[in-house]
Amino acid sequence: MASTSPSSLSPPPVPMELHASNRQKLLNSFRQHLSDSSRPHHGFVLLQGGEEQTRYCTDHLELFRQESYFAYLFGVREPGFYGAIDVATGKSILFAPRLPADYAVWMGEIKPVSYFQERYMVSMVNYTDEIAQVLADQYKGSGKPLLFLLHGLNTDSNNFSKPAEFEGIEKFETDLTTLHPILTECRVFKSDLELALIQFANDISSEAHVEVMRKTKAGMKEYQLESMFLHHTYMYGGCRHCSYTCICATGENSSVLHYGHAAAPNDRILEDGDMALLDMGAEYSFYGSDITCSFPVNGKFTSDQSLIYNAVLNAHNAVITAMKPGINWVDMHKLAEKVVLESLKKGNILVGNLDDMMVERVGAIFMPHGLGHLLGIDTHDPGGYPKGVERPKEPGLKSLRTARQLHEGMVITVEPGCYFIDALLAPAMENTSTSKFFNREMVDRFKNFGGVRIESDVLVTANGSKNMTKVPRETWEIEAVMAGGPWPPLNKASG
Amino acid sequence: MASTSPSSLSPPPVPMELHASNRQKLLNSFRQHLSDSSRPHHGFVLLQGGEEQTRYCTDHLELFRQESYFAYLFGVREPGFYGAIDVATGKSILFAPRLPADYAVWMGEIKPVSYFQERYMVSMVNYTDEIAQVLADQYKGSGKPLLFLLHGLNTDSNNFSKPAEFEGIEKFETDLTTLHPILTECRVFKSDLELALIQFANDISSEAHVEVMRKTKAGMKEYQLESMFLHHTYMYGGCRHCSYTCICATGENSSVLHYGHAAAPNDRILEDGDMALLDMGAEYSFYGSDITCSFPVNGKFTSDQSLIYNAVLNAHNAVITAMKPGINWVDMHKLAEKVVLESLKKGNILVGNLDDMMVERVGAIFMPHGLGHLLGIDTHDPGGYPKGVERPKEPGLKSLRTARQLHEGMVITVEPGCYFIDALLAPAMENTSTSKFFNREMVDRFKNFGGVRIESDVLVTANGSKNMTKVPRETWEIEAVMAGGPWPPLNKASG
Repeated sequence: MASTSPSSLSPPPVPMELHASNRQKLLNSFRQHLSDSSRPHHGFVLLQGGEEQTRYCTDHLELFRQESYFAYLFGVREPGFYGAIDVATGKSILFAPRLPADYAVWMGEIKPVSYFQERYMVSMVNYTDEIAQVLADQYKGSGKPLLFLLHGLNTDSNNFSKPAEFEGIEKFETDLTTLHPILTECRVFKSDLELALIQFANDISSEAHVEVMRKTKAGMKEYQLESMFLHHTYMYGGCRHCSYTCICATGENSSVLHYGHAAAPNDRILEDGDMALLDMGAEYSFYGSDITCSFPVNGKFTSDQSLIYNAVLNAHNAVITAMKPGINWVDMHKLAEKVVLESLKKGNILVGNLDDMMVERVGAIFMPHGLGHLLGIDTHDPGGYPKGVERPKEPGLKSLRTARQLHEGMVITVEPGCYFIDALLAPAMENTSTSKFFNREMVDRFKNFGGVRIESDVLVTANGSKNMTKVPRETWEIEAVMAGGPWPPLNKASG
Repeated sequence: MASTSPSSLSPPPVPMELHASNRQKLLNSFRQHLSDSSRPHHGFVLLQGGEEQTRYCTDHLELFRQESYFAYLFGVREPGFYGAIDVATGKSILFAPRLPADYAVWMGEIKPVSYFQERYMVSMVNYTDEIAQVLADQYKGSGKPLLFLLHGLNTDSNNFSKPAEFEGIEKFETDLTTLHPILTECRVFKSDLELALIQFANDISSEAHVEVMRKTKAGMKEYQLESMFLHHTYMYGGCRHCSYTCICATGENSSVLHYGHAAAPNDRILEDGDMALLDMGAEYSFYGSDITCSFPVNGKFTSDQSLIYNAVLNAHNAVITAMKPGINWVDMHKLAEKVVLESLKKGNILVGNLDDMMVERVGAIFMPHGLGHLLGIDTHDPGGYPKGVERPKEPGLKSLRTARQLHEGMVITVEPGCYFIDALLAPAMENTSTSKFFNREMVDRFKNFGGVRIESDVLVTANGSKNMTKVPRETWEIEAVMAGGPWPPLNKASG
């Protein structure tokens, strides 16, 4: 059945308890932190949700996507909201925008506050023009009421989150430093309810990857693969947003790590003999997935393609096998590098001593990006560098979006790659300390190969890890699926 | 053949002469304007292109779409550019961002300036850090060189376009008033090269509407219709962007004019007996389409559905037949209203004298939006209210995005509608000056009907008009297509 029906999945209901329990988790951490620093349990956590944006000077409205911290705590899909949590009582309060009467004509029913109270399972709902009054009324402490606002560095973008602003804020004390690290740390460890959404995003995206793999043919345009993926995840998974712009890279383009953007818009024609590198993941009810499959466009691996592909697959599998709480992510990155370098040496592309290559950071020439990143409501979920965790400085390692120890409940991508990037290979083959490792003839043979990346979303469990991504990975599995075979394989499906 | 293949279309090549001729058109108008006001032909038109945006504080990159005025003149798909036109010589100069070396690893090849010069058919390309120097060098006048910057009101959004900013701008005289009205007026009248792109966007979107119509079934979700549309236009038309967020409204939702946004996200389940109102249009190489089809979900019109549908279709056809240069758009809006009111009277929903209804603006209760808007690089293309054209103040008419006379080369949407909107009907039936027109029993019968909109993109020609949208419009055409019949009909296809 699975091979004749377009999908075996349907979008699951989203329980609002998920966000209520996120709030409770924050409240517990927050109170603990206040107690630890001998501060009273007073004041409000206050966040401002996202606003709808128009395009440049026009009235073209971009499709709104909620700001991620706000989505985490409140799950609100509408723009223009604020949300507060009373640290003293635990009460949650949403502030809805007061909509003009003609909203009903143009945009839809003007919902009463009771609708939002029920839908989002909060204690109270008021209007955004009542924030100052409501919070002052609710405050039980003495003196100016205290607001904990969200302000802190995103270590991937180097941008700061924008603290809430509203009319009357000058009547409050504001604390800009306490909330961000605590809330960020809450997001790092996923609850079972969160994991269920990440799993669904993985399931529908995995299925869509298989669908695309089966339909890929020489002569198509790269963007047609993107279109098939988007359609499958929206049509059958209800995923209106992707976690990120699809990277549909074939041939040489597969060595461009973030291909697919407006200046490199997935517009090449697929050729027989190309490798395809498809990095695509759907988002379901704010929670994302991030999956890369690499495969030959014509459905059959050449020996060169197998060599590079298996180098990466072995790294991918070695990391997932080694992952468990307490393991350091930088060590996992180095493990992946070492496995790739070993394979390249076996394949006669590299020569010399492996440990020497590691010292000279040869791995970073073939894999200049980090091994993986935390995943959740953001594709690059925050919390990779909390206070005390330093970003490494060496090539490759400095691209890591986290250098933390693994801990149960983290979801992290495992995405080793091996790319033939002229901008890195050419100087490395000139450099006196690295030139000796390269077999120039072989490197030349792979000049236009592009690259391979294999990326799964992996949950760190109490004793090890669980791969949430379910796509064909072995070369024979890929060849079988592309030849029309079932996925998952029949023995697994019936087992 | 047409009925078995998913598409008979493929994306056409986009000639850069299109944007070169847009520049020439601006230059001619601009020089004429300077001559008319006895000013010298000196200085530079300077525009700043759009920048890539990240989502809130994260490194999530939104898919870049070029600012529309910049796209009009230069056709540049990459972010971070500036563009200049020397009013004295007609030379066009692009300024490209100087990209860091690691762009080559992450984003793709760093293109030389010669690549952009050839691709975009401009006279020169320099880097953005050279703007002040290059423009000073090129300037042939005396004194501080003069820059004509883009600053003016968008009459749909009430936002102002942002004039270019760059380091060293203080060395120039700047003129903020001359450019905007002249450039906006250029955009109002489409060239044949522009029309070819708008026609393709219409062709692929029309085909996709038919595809969706054929596959619509009770039990589906509204967003599945959106997904099919997006897939068809991207897969077979190469349209990565839509002109606007798809409105996929069924049942009562079809009376919400801008349904489909994040707070009303096309998530209702289609029921047997519903009308569907699908307002969806693809964009191809910056140029858009804007098409609405309304049809019964189960493929057969009831007599009530036919009554409202034909009221709107008659208005749509009457307007297109009447359109020609010199006709005023406000009169077309009133014509559409009158035809709709006539039908509602025939259908016994309204009673009384038609002219009295027009005086009391009863039409605006059933069609609160404007009849249509200019269409081009923006869905709501600018230029609707140039100096001297006043926005009407009456209900309905005040929603018009233009009150101009028609002129050859304008592309304008014709989109009459008839909606049963409780927020408008309830007060109108209470109001002493309008209550007499309503047959309450009949209005009550249509309470949950929703609404019908029929929207085509129409070119004003020398002697009349040409409908660029090619979808089934007559009730029997829609029923035939939804029952599996061919589109276009065989006699037309072979004729």
